[in-house]
Amino acid sequence: MLDSIFNPKSIGVIGASNTKGKVGYSIMKNLLAFIEHNPNNKLYPINPKYNEILGLKCYKSILDVPEESIDLAIITIPAKYVPKALEECGRKNVKGAIIISAGFSEVGNHNLEEEIKSIGEKYNIKIIGPNCLGIINMYNRLNASFSKEYFAEGNITFISQSGALLTAILDIAPLLNLGFSKIISLGNKVDIQESDLMDYLINDDTTKVVVFYIEGLKDKKFIDSAKRLAKVKPIIVLKGGRSEEGAKAISSHTGSLAGDAQIYNAAFKKGKILVVDTFEELVNLMHVFSTQPIMRGNKIAIITNAGGFGVMAADSCKKYNLTLGDFQPSTREKLKKYLPQTSSISNPLDLIGDADTSRYRHALEIIKEDKNIDGIIVILTPQEMTKPLEVAETIVNIKKDMENKEISKAIVASFVGGKSIKGAKSYLRKNGIPAYISPESGVEVLSRSYRYNIMKIQEDNCEYLWNIKSQLMEIKEKNLDTIKDLLNNPNEYNSKEFLKIHGINVPEKYLVKTPEEAKHYANILGKVVMKISSKHIVHKSDAGCVIVKPDNIEEAFHKIISNGEDYLKRNNIEGNIDGVLIEEYIKGLELIVGGKRDEVFGPVIMVGLGGVFVEVLKDVSFAIHPITKEYALDTLKELKSYRILEGIRGRPKRDINYILDVMIKLGLIMEMYPEIKEIDINPLFVREEGKGGCVGDALIITNNKK
Amino acid sequence: MLDSIFNPKSIGVIGASNTKGKVGYSIMKNLLAFIEHNPNNKLYPINPKYNEILGLKCYKSILDVPEESIDLAIITIPAKYVPKALEECGRKNVKGAIIISAGFSEVGNHNLEEEIKSIGEKYNIKIIGPNCLGIINMYNRLNASFSKEYFAEGNITFISQSGALLTAILDIAPLLNLGFSKIISLGNKVDIQESDLMDYLINDDTTKVVVFYIEGLKDKKFIDSAKRLAKVKPIIVLKGGRSEEGAKAISSHTGSLAGDAQIYNAAFKKGKILVVDTFEELVNLMHVFSTQPIMRGNKIAIITNAGGFGVMAADSCKKYNLTLGDFQPSTREKLKKYLPQTSSISNPLDLIGDADTSRYRHALEIIKEDKNIDGIIVILTPQEMTKPLEVAETIVNIKKDMENKEISKAIVASFVGGKSIKGAKSYLRKNGIPAYISPESGVEVLSRSYRYNIMKIQEDNCEYLWNIKSQLMEIKEKNLDTIKDLLNNPNEYNSKEFLKIHGINVPEKYLVKTPEEAKHYANILGKVVMKISSKHIVHKSDAGCVIVKPDNIEEAFHKIISNGEDYLKRNNIEGNIDGVLIEEYIKGLELIVGGKRDEVFGPVIMVGLGGVFVEVLKDVSFAIHPITKEYALDTLKELKSYRILEGIRGRPKRDINYILDVMIKLGLIMEMYPEIKEIDINPLFVREEGKGGCVGDALIITNNKK
Repeated sequence: MLDSIFNPKSIGVIGASNTKGKVGYSIMKNLLAFIEHNPNNKLYPINPKYNEILGLKCYKSILDVPEESIDLAIITIPAKYVPKALEECGRKNVKGAIIISAGFSEVGNHNLEEEIKSIGEKYNIKIIGPNCLGIINMYNRLNASFSKEYFAEGNITFISQSGALLTAILDIAPLLNLGFSKIISLGNKVDIQESDLMDYLINDDTTKVVVFYIEGLKDKKFIDSAKRLAKVKPIIVLKGGRSEEGAKAISSHTGSLAGDAQIYNAAFKKGKILVVDTFEELVNLMHVFSTQPIMRGNKIAIITNAGGFGVMAADSCKKYNLTLGDFQPSTREKLKKYLPQTSSISNPLDLIGDADTSRYRHALEIIKEDKNIDGIIVILTPQEMTKPLEVAETIVNIKKDMENKEISKAIVASFVGGKSIKGAKSYLRKNGIPAYISPESGVEVLSRSYRYNIMKIQEDNCEYLWNIKSQLMEIKEKNLDTIKDLLNNPNEYNSKEFLKIHGINVPEKYLVKTPEEAKHYANILGKVVMKISSKHIVHKSDAGCVIVKPDNIEEAFHKIISNGEDYLKRNNIEGNIDGVLIEEYIKGLELIVGGKRDEVFGPVIMVGLGGVFVEVLKDVSFAIHPITKEYALDTLKELKSYRILEGIRGRPKRDINYILDVMIKLGLIMEMYPEIKEIDINPLFVREEGKGGCVGDALIITNNKK
Repeated sequence: MLDSIFNPKSIGVIGASNTKGKVGYSIMKNLLAFIEHNPNNKLYPINPKYNEILGLKCYKSILDVPEESIDLAIITIPAKYVPKALEECGRKNVKGAIIISAGFSEVGNHNLEEEIKSIGEKYNIKIIGPNCLGIINMYNRLNASFSKEYFAEGNITFISQSGALLTAILDIAPLLNLGFSKIISLGNKVDIQESDLMDYLINDDTTKVVVFYIEGLKDKKFIDSAKRLAKVKPIIVLKGGRSEEGAKAISSHTGSLAGDAQIYNAAFKKGKILVVDTFEELVNLMHVFSTQPIMRGNKIAIITNAGGFGVMAADSCKKYNLTLGDFQPSTREKLKKYLPQTSSISNPLDLIGDADTSRYRHALEIIKEDKNIDGIIVILTPQEMTKPLEVAETIVNIKKDMENKEISKAIVASFVGGKSIKGAKSYLRKNGIPAYISPESGVEVLSRSYRYNIMKIQEDNCEYLWNIKSQLMEIKEKNLDTIKDLLNNPNEYNSKEFLKIHGINVPEKYLVKTPEEAKHYANILGKVVMKISSKHIVHKSDAGCVIVKPDNIEEAFHKIISNGEDYLKRNNIEGNIDGVLIEEYIKGLELIVGGKRDEVFGPVIMVGLGGVFVEVLKDVSFAIHPITKEYALDTLKELKSYRILEGIRGRPKRDINYILDVMIKLGLIMEMYPEIKEIDINPLFVREEGKGGCVGDALIITNNKK
């Protein structure tokens, strides 16, 4: 379907112009080059003001074009005229449209944007934009944008929500010899979303790496498409607008609302996407993924002519979770022959300051064969004997040799210096070797490559998840009426009843109306916790409406009720108190597990250890539903405090499986009951391994009015 | 004193050579240029093998030189001949020597190194090296090194423990227009240390920024000298060898032992030094400090022609503790005149994609006068209307204008792109404007500049510290014998007694030998803790020798003794049990405070919250004695868990002053009692504000044998 956009046989340019400097002129110029390159394809300028544009006959309307249908329409006319033009496109059987015109939701014209959306749907036109720069397909020379002519064939497809970023990337590309398959500016995304493109790119042979600049998403299929694509091609994302100030700047910039950074990160992680923070990181990763094989393992070799820089690279390895591989005995043997006696054959391999080109070559020749090594960093400092350009040529030759022999090792260079290594660095970059100044950058990119490999091979095992789902579905069916009642009045008691029905343990509890009842149940329960039951009092502790292990049950009952009444009065709330909840007193490690509904990504589950961990350290982690068991565990392991769950210093290991179950269930519950906006379990008490746990306090917020 | 090294009137080169490629030849060549530039100065080649070297009369020994004394001797002969040559230097009244020869401690020849050290001391010769590259003084053209001729006058003095790093810096310098005052290779540092150089550089008018590459220090005066120097000039350090692997690589590399990373960081922080992690960061900071005024406040302005990049820079501000300044009303008024209507006058200031050079100029002209702004980041992306070189020229002119008008604002550029901004970026760099690709780098360097300003103006207030010191000195004098006894047998009881004498609260406690005694004191104390008293059992809890709030005192007594005996037997320790310690049971927030003695920096005090914070999160912070009250508080505030001490979510604020006192006292105690190797207070119970605290457990380790 998107082929009509990326490989159109016929193109109409609505708003074509003869006036230099106008967008409609630049685009026509760019497309004439396309027609020259593809003489059988057709180009039709559309503009009622002209009879001819750049030597081509010009039509008053696309309806006048003497063809049955048109593959692609490019629209550059002012926003208010777009609906009519698009309507005509529909009647002309246009398959795809790129709407470059601005003046839609980004300036508040939401209605106009909705209008073109529905016209597109009515006629089944695939639309890119509006408010975009257009697209470029390097392989058929289609520049359907108003960017200057630029073609460099390569394996990167770049998709951007910002024109400026695109321009900057195209500008830096020649220096790094970065080549592209497709360049796509998405604009306001009225129709074609990131997921559509990702689905399309899975089978696009000329694309090996997919890069996004994203400010905000509204694409509900994003994660699923990303997961499918990431199985075969790495995806890299630079996300704009992460801080609050950032978010503000974005909303005035493109009219899209920036999302919560943590949820975006969870979504990217689930989509097996590599996230970068800066433009430089983005460029570095593009370069390494477009030129180097993926790191199959985490073992690297460092070759250097300066001990100190070997040290720095070794330091970085730890930070980035790479390790220095142990050379095979045969490698050591061979290296000994070519290295001076004072050199210790170890990793980092110090070639010593007087290393000449042949010493680098021998070292690389030998190490490239070492099976214990997945990637190589070559460090060079300009010393007396050093010939940087020669060493660069050697590295490039080694790379070619590895390609010929199908040896899959990544290789990057860190040439530390300025004047005397400039030529060598640029030679390396132009010949497919990422080259940096700091050794650390080399370590970082290789670690990212290895990280991608881990994500890529991870398989989802959904059996456990689906088992739980079918249990919960059965429960829902059987208890439809009860559940409806509980969700209609989701106070603490009912919230807990709701969870209990769905198989999440809650304390034994009774809702009592009198001190006598309370005393009766206290006798049954032993140690108890007493608290108010009222959906109008959310922060019960703060209101003085929770008493743990009371000595005198009757006194506690009265105190809770009167504090509750005071609270309602003080805050002018006309609400009712259902009574006092008396529960068995539970012990265990306190966690927080909660769920909220994200507009784009759906149910998001948060987990963290309670108390200071969440309050002081904000140590929480997010997973996006659906949650497999492995994914739940990964999410839990992201917590800095995870080790506590494993039991440290003689403290018991906790029932981690129980936590995973609660996370998985909360996600499913939110899927099954769309009226639930939020669920908070705080605390969730977790007992020792194998002994499960129990909800301490629970709160469900629904959309149900009143 | 160091003037004879940096500004010598007469130089002897011991090991001068006529043979090209030899070090003694390169140095002679370099020094001939010095003599040419300073025709009144004298150069004497020394080598028994020659009568003449490079046209100068050659002497068999420095003793033969027809001068009363010689300012500087440069020694390049093989290591084993160095002592004799140095001895002769001494007899000739040589004031300074640079020993370039290698073959000393770095290859294990510690005795030879000691020998030259004592010769230097005997004759009072200031020595740089051995095993160094030499020094360069740019202003008098003294290149007393075997590096190639290179002179670029500037304001940076670079001191390096690694030759390769020096070479790399000199190589990159021309690209950034970095100029130097002095370049110094320190080698094995047998005499002249970092502190000597820092003291010298305080009054060196041509030095404005001091940069170090350090692998290991043995300089006990380092911190004090750094503090003095940092008051007037920023100091930047790149430290090699931080990880374990790193440390290994270093010890085989230069023979100096890498220190514990955390202690080094504490030392650098105390010395008001800026620490960088990578070569790139180092270069970036050198550039900004050598060209820009110090950031007086943390408020920056961001000017951009691409909204998205403004967003990214704004994001980075949060990360790096800078804020976006609010423009003054007059600034807003003026900006309105020159910006398109669609532009919202806010910070980041979006000049919009079609900004031409004049729009940049107006914005800069106006913002440079805004008193709410301390630094400016100019972001440029190459768009249709953009003329990068013109904008670069504008920025450089604005900088000159600010210098003329004595407006102290730092200005850096982020030109995002490649081909089309290359020339502009290099123009900026050559004209004193740091220029980066990512906006984030600009934010980072400005934040470092601001950070330096904060450190620089911080004054030590030692009164509180000295008051405590004189109290402790008095205590020591009065209790000399008791203290000696306690330190002779520092079991828990005695360790606590020792602390108590020095004014650090300990629980009321009794050492008992029988269950009856125990019961007697338990009656007096109420709730108690019972534990073994034996200096042979260090981890008492693990050995089952601590019982908290026992129900049955007699049982507890027997259990502790028998577990203790079992422990000794099991571990084949022939040690004795002093009895059982019975103490009042103390409550409070648990902290850990400890002291250890670092070989270079002296007493180091560690502080952290107990339990999971130290065990799981390794959340500890270090201060180096002497510790002022403000410094102690700064150290405490570095803890991620600091907020807990301030009281969160209704929990009480803790007695922070009490913690500071304990930190300060432990530092002083370790100074006053050199026989103490380590003190550990774990836990230190800290009560609510104003209520002090109490030692829970204490252990002192001394050097005293048996």
